[in-house]
Amino acid sequence: MSSTHASTTVDTVTTGPIEGSVKHYEQVDADGTTLRIPVRRVNLTNGEHFDVYDTSGPYTDSDATLDLEGGLPKLRDGWAKPDAAGPRTQLAWARAGIVTTEMRYIAAREGVSPELVRDEVAAGRAVIPANHNHPECEPMIIGKKFAVKINANIGNSAVTSSIAEEVEKMVWATRWGADTIMDLSTGKNIHETREWILRNSPVPVGTVPIYQALEKVNGDPTALTWEIYRDTVIEQAEQGVDYMTVHAGVLLRYVPLTAKRVTGIVSRGGSIMAAWCLAHHQESFLYTRFAELCEILAKYDITFSLGDGLRPGSIADANDEAQFAELRTLGELTKIAKSHGVQVMIEGPGHVPMHKIVENVRLEEELCEEAPFYTLGPLATDIAPAYDHITSAIGAAIIAQAGTAMLCYVTPKEHLGLPNRDDVKTGVITYKIAAHAADLAKGHPRAQERDDALSKARFEFRWRDQFALSLDPDTAREYHDETLPAEPAKTAHFCSMCGPKFCSMRISADVREYAAQQGLSDSQALEAGMAEKSAEFAQAGGQVYLPVVS
Amino acid sequence: MSSTHASTTVDTVTTGPIEGSVKHYEQVDADGTTLRIPVRRVNLTNGEHFDVYDTSGPYTDSDATLDLEGGLPKLRDGWAKPDAAGPRTQLAWARAGIVTTEMRYIAAREGVSPELVRDEVAAGRAVIPANHNHPECEPMIIGKKFAVKINANIGNSAVTSSIAEEVEKMVWATRWGADTIMDLSTGKNIHETREWILRNSPVPVGTVPIYQALEKVNGDPTALTWEIYRDTVIEQAEQGVDYMTVHAGVLLRYVPLTAKRVTGIVSRGGSIMAAWCLAHHQESFLYTRFAELCEILAKYDITFSLGDGLRPGSIADANDEAQFAELRTLGELTKIAKSHGVQVMIEGPGHVPMHKIVENVRLEEELCEEAPFYTLGPLATDIAPAYDHITSAIGAAIIAQAGTAMLCYVTPKEHLGLPNRDDVKTGVITYKIAAHAADLAKGHPRAQERDDALSKARFEFRWRDQFALSLDPDTAREYHDETLPAEPAKTAHFCSMCGPKFCSMRISADVREYAAQQGLSDSQALEAGMAEKSAEFAQAGGQVYLPVVS
Repeated sequence: MSSTHASTTVDTVTTGPIEGSVKHYEQVDADGTTLRIPVRRVNLTNGEHFDVYDTSGPYTDSDATLDLEGGLPKLRDGWAKPDAAGPRTQLAWARAGIVTTEMRYIAAREGVSPELVRDEVAAGRAVIPANHNHPECEPMIIGKKFAVKINANIGNSAVTSSIAEEVEKMVWATRWGADTIMDLSTGKNIHETREWILRNSPVPVGTVPIYQALEKVNGDPTALTWEIYRDTVIEQAEQGVDYMTVHAGVLLRYVPLTAKRVTGIVSRGGSIMAAWCLAHHQESFLYTRFAELCEILAKYDITFSLGDGLRPGSIADANDEAQFAELRTLGELTKIAKSHGVQVMIEGPGHVPMHKIVENVRLEEELCEEAPFYTLGPLATDIAPAYDHITSAIGAAIIAQAGTAMLCYVTPKEHLGLPNRDDVKTGVITYKIAAHAADLAKGHPRAQERDDALSKARFEFRWRDQFALSLDPDTAREYHDETLPAEPAKTAHFCSMCGPKFCSMRISADVREYAAQQGLSDSQALEAGMAEKSAEFAQAGGQVYLPVVS
Repeated sequence: MSSTHASTTVDTVTTGPIEGSVKHYEQVDADGTTLRIPVRRVNLTNGEHFDVYDTSGPYTDSDATLDLEGGLPKLRDGWAKPDAAGPRTQLAWARAGIVTTEMRYIAAREGVSPELVRDEVAAGRAVIPANHNHPECEPMIIGKKFAVKINANIGNSAVTSSIAEEVEKMVWATRWGADTIMDLSTGKNIHETREWILRNSPVPVGTVPIYQALEKVNGDPTALTWEIYRDTVIEQAEQGVDYMTVHAGVLLRYVPLTAKRVTGIVSRGGSIMAAWCLAHHQESFLYTRFAELCEILAKYDITFSLGDGLRPGSIADANDEAQFAELRTLGELTKIAKSHGVQVMIEGPGHVPMHKIVENVRLEEELCEEAPFYTLGPLATDIAPAYDHITSAIGAAIIAQAGTAMLCYVTPKEHLGLPNRDDVKTGVITYKIAAHAADLAKGHPRAQERDDALSKARFEFRWRDQFALSLDPDTAREYHDETLPAEPAKTAHFCSMCGPKFCSMRISADVREYAAQQGLSDSQALEAGMAEKSAEFAQAGGQVYLPVVS
């Protein structure tokens, strides 16, 4: 690892398989290269197994030998970077009809054809955030035809947290399913923190370069210049940042539109650029130098995440003129970026009541040529600080069902403080729920298989399988064991919620078993046969479950 | 209190105001009686106050003198019970054009006219669950034109919990906003537990009488009879139960429809009745004796909650023939109940993927004459045991937006064990979020006022007001204080999430203040004036926030 962070050591992170699962690699041949596609494999107690999309990198391998100082193995180092088509970006290659190794890897991961991956990238409807300088990254795709992805924000602030904590948060977030992480550090050692995160991250890393640029001018936004910003972007690009949030849509004339809002401008980047625009009374360098920025990003194949600097920060401000004016500008910038071969996604709100959510997606798709939408929640109400992972999961599920490709998580600490490791996990699991609920609603071919596998385990009282198939096996088991810790309870035909006498699943299973024993295997036969069999059933005591002493 | 529970004492429950709020009673004149309408009053630090609908009863009064043994004051004891119109039920009175005292109380609580309350009840689109024998109850209404309500299930099981714990859960659930509670006890001392709960509950209490009836036949469902069930209903009616879940729609011919389901029958009541139907090969007494049941419920003005015994227990089983066949039968039963003057609501699923949720509401409204829909979630995915409060809040918000009138909460322990006191609170707060999000989406006149008040407090860094206006002030403050416990942080213009240099709200506020100082109070003026003012702003250092040492 580079000498810039020799002063810091990160000694330990969480490793080892998730309870009830093992890390498995599917071998896939891609033009002579053998790709190893990671899955979390749940070996079920009935002899079957179930594979789950895995984002956790080598940290969950049983036999991982990790070197945090040296970083993860450089997975993509040997992969071809075709010269064919101008800029060496996934977008340019896709447009030239080339299926890259990254696309093959992703196709195997998603269970789709490599051609679908290529075509969606070529159309700008999907992005593959993969900086050439981040070879440690396991390629993934963000687009509405694929599984909905989630991002976890980490990073220190001036008030709290250390590098070691942030690296652990990255490992921890990806362990539970974060598809990308954003390092939003604004405190000490921004460069060094990012270096540690990038070298050890198996998922794409995003940043907001204006944060670091602001540090370089001692926190005075009006002192920001294009040169300082550009150099910061290049510094981060060289390190391997995969996507960058750029608030280039905050135009001078939009700032007054926020004056009568309940909560003004709530995007950090947006407020910084608004302050700059006001002070200089001109359009920001992010907007005026956008083409130059595109050239830099194209060189590394960094994906734009065009920031919504004027997103609403309260229910009252949702879908207002400031928000949608900026979105129109993001649409113009999308076209410019793509003309430079740069991949683009569009960031979205924020705080939006349920009935105004879908309009956001429709407008984004219309104005931004269906570039992948990447939204923060949105929170469906403002009144529940400490529960904004939940207020926003409601909005997130709805907006993802409508077509949002990636959801930026919100933790219980939103609006209140910097999330700790527990908050990160809660945020990630909550957003996996929202993303999966949307996948189900969109009819994603693989989504319901997991629900069915888990529900089947539940119905058959395979408690260990139910836990292992869940998003968070540790907590599921812990909650179960709170009242029934004994080993036999793991195969018992009840839990403490209803107790043995009232378990409907048990009664239902017994009814079914009775029917099957009588050869009544389908509905017609069951109905027809029931008349004669019911007397028999009653005679046998009608005992569909064992009585217990109450 | 009656001697049946002399052996038990419940010594203590949670009392005192919610942090940052005081209990206030609005005096409302109703035909000579002065009604005292409870609200949770938040006295804001800016001198204003904000009133919130309150369900907590006298337990949150500052000067409450509680007598758990004697029960709550009998609020409704002196209220008129007109003789005019056949059965003495809110439905019959409403149909006769009578506005009852309960209706006036509710109108004041909801901020609507008494006539709207009466008309919605008369149409069967709303119910007022208020057993004549539960005079301690503060009247409330369940119907889609009013604020969405939530129910909290409590009650012991054969495995765990005591009477004292269950009474505290009732007080605790209503403290945080439960509009009704259901006592689903299936363990020891069912009658006594219910008596303690009823005498001390300020909200309507629901039950599922078949649970207690089953205890009386030692857990053998096939041994159940109409007589045992009827006597149990009368026993509970005499105690004051306000609404009863009755699984009268589980017909014999529907049972085979569940045979090929992934999770069979998951309703406890449904599985009990299915076992009975199979064993006897005839329709259940709940169905064949439904008219007699109506006569009993009419006498006490108990509301039917027609149970969905065949609700889906997994994504795979959602909206299937078994579920909708039962719903059609519930529609028939609705008409019969109403013809007896009995109020009716209809229970709904369960587990339903997002794209299949709205169909449930449309069909329920069509088949059941828009009787209030009362749904359990639904869970939008099966894969997150330990987080099913969240999976179901997503479904609950969506189904409430579509017209569901009351949401039955789900706690983190769902599928895993009996909820404890913490789980009850988490479930209640989560469901207050879902209900409020739906109120916002439906344009409920009072809903957004609270979001606006909280967001305004947030933007103005009135931290204490932000906490006090939230659903859970204790946890909001606790999370904030985790990183910034010092007293000055309560008025600081930042939190630990971004630190002082990066607070967008602060920058935004400073930008606005700058504009206001310059007399740029509206957008046009601001834009027009900005050119000349920007130089001035820059000259002044462009200092929109105070730099800190990083």
